[in-house]
Amino acid sequence: GKLPFCAMGVSSVIHPKNPHVPTMHFNYRYFEIEEADGTVQWWFGGGTDLTPTYLNEEDAVHFHKTLKEACDKHDLKLYPKYKKWCDDYFYIKHRGERRGIGGIFFDDMDSPSKEEVFQFVKSCAKAVVPCYIPIVKKHCHDSFTPEEKLWQQLRRGRYVEFNLVYDRGTKFGLLTPGSRIESILMSLPLTARWEYMHNPPESSKEAEILEVLRNPKDWVH
Amino acid sequence: GKLPFCAMGVSSVIHPKNPHVPTMHFNYRYFEIEEADGTVQWWFGGGTDLTPTYLNEEDAVHFHKTLKEACDKHDLKLYPKYKKWCDDYFYIKHRGERRGIGGIFFDDMDSPSKEEVFQFVKSCAKAVVPCYIPIVKKHCHDSFTPEEKLWQQLRRGRYVEFNLVYDRGTKFGLLTPGSRIESILMSLPLTARWEYMHNPPESSKEAEILEVLRNPKDWVH
Repeated sequence: GKLPFCAMGVSSVIHPKNPHVPTMHFNYRYFEIEEADGTVQWWFGGGTDLTPTYLNEEDAVHFHKTLKEACDKHDLKLYPKYKKWCDDYFYIKHRGERRGIGGIFFDDMDSPSKEEVFQFVKSCAKAVVPCYIPIVKKHCHDSFTPEEKLWQQLRRGRYVEFNLVYDRGTKFGLLTPGSRIESILMSLPLTARWEYMHNPPESSKEAEILEVLRNPKDWVH
Repeated sequence: GKLPFCAMGVSSVIHPKNPHVPTMHFNYRYFEIEEADGTVQWWFGGGTDLTPTYLNEEDAVHFHKTLKEACDKHDLKLYPKYKKWCDDYFYIKHRGERRGIGGIFFDDMDSPSKEEVFQFVKSCAKAVVPCYIPIVKKHCHDSFTPEEKLWQQLRRGRYVEFNLVYDRGTKFGLLTPGSRIESILMSLPLTARWEYMHNPPESSKEAEILEVLRNPKDWVH
């Protein structure tokens, strides 16, 4: 049968050229459905997450700390719960790796009240710029080698794998007749690369980020 | 419950550097399962298909004609049936395009007899080299422009979309615990590209191949 619904959201992904500037993605959304008996169900969802090519611990702490502060203003339980949800959601199962170093992710948020959830979502959205822009400013003039650019391209291959194989928004969009494909696939990077059996040498900078993608860390306490 | 099975196959994908040399893929496989009552079910599957960056009608005809001849030696009904199956299988639904200009594709082939099906599959496998190598030899020294290379990279993005979103072998492999990921994803190209709202100009060479991917043609009669 028919289920009248209303959905709205904002999404953005930035894939910088410089491998020392991480990829950042955020999405905040609101859903409303009207059930057969006329009752209206509503919920918010969203999140902000970071995907670096190379690990910079100071940046990781800054990013997570800024998100934690946004969450803590509303409820101290939110950041730990949504940080873990983010690590669980952005999991590339066939690789045993997360897409990035996480951030926050949540869905089906419908309590304590619509006004309070909306205030929380606004705090998260307002945290996007202070989370990310200082990291961009810090690294956008960093020089990089062809080897670092190549590693970035291989990581973007993993980004493509996550988005096409696991991301619920992408899968839902691709399956929806009449959906706007270009809007859905705008999350993909400009370019990506796959190499058979690529394995960075032990204790390299490439192995360092892989370790964190395999075993997520708590960046703030 | 457990279902004892035995599977074997051979797959190959070639993604040439030169955009005038098409990508070629083939896979031939044999499955056997033993049911609870001890009866053994077996079947063959497989196919060979071509993914050009630019359309060359002479090459398309040569490729399909070689496959048709391999099929016709066994049964005149096979090529038309498996040509259509190939066009249907390699369909990127969200784009309304096929991955390439097709070839043959079949599955669950278990008649008229194991020996006859095996002879058919051997004919198909033996047709791979005469299908493809003349096309490689004809074009491998063709010069190409940066624009042609860029179009190849965008087409490789579509190849990645098909393989990660729709291909049954890939999906089955990624979902199988303990499967060899590198073997499954070796079908992906070395590099790929996505551009927002890329649309080739009308009656360009890029639009010409898109037209054939949207409306598959019969290359041989």
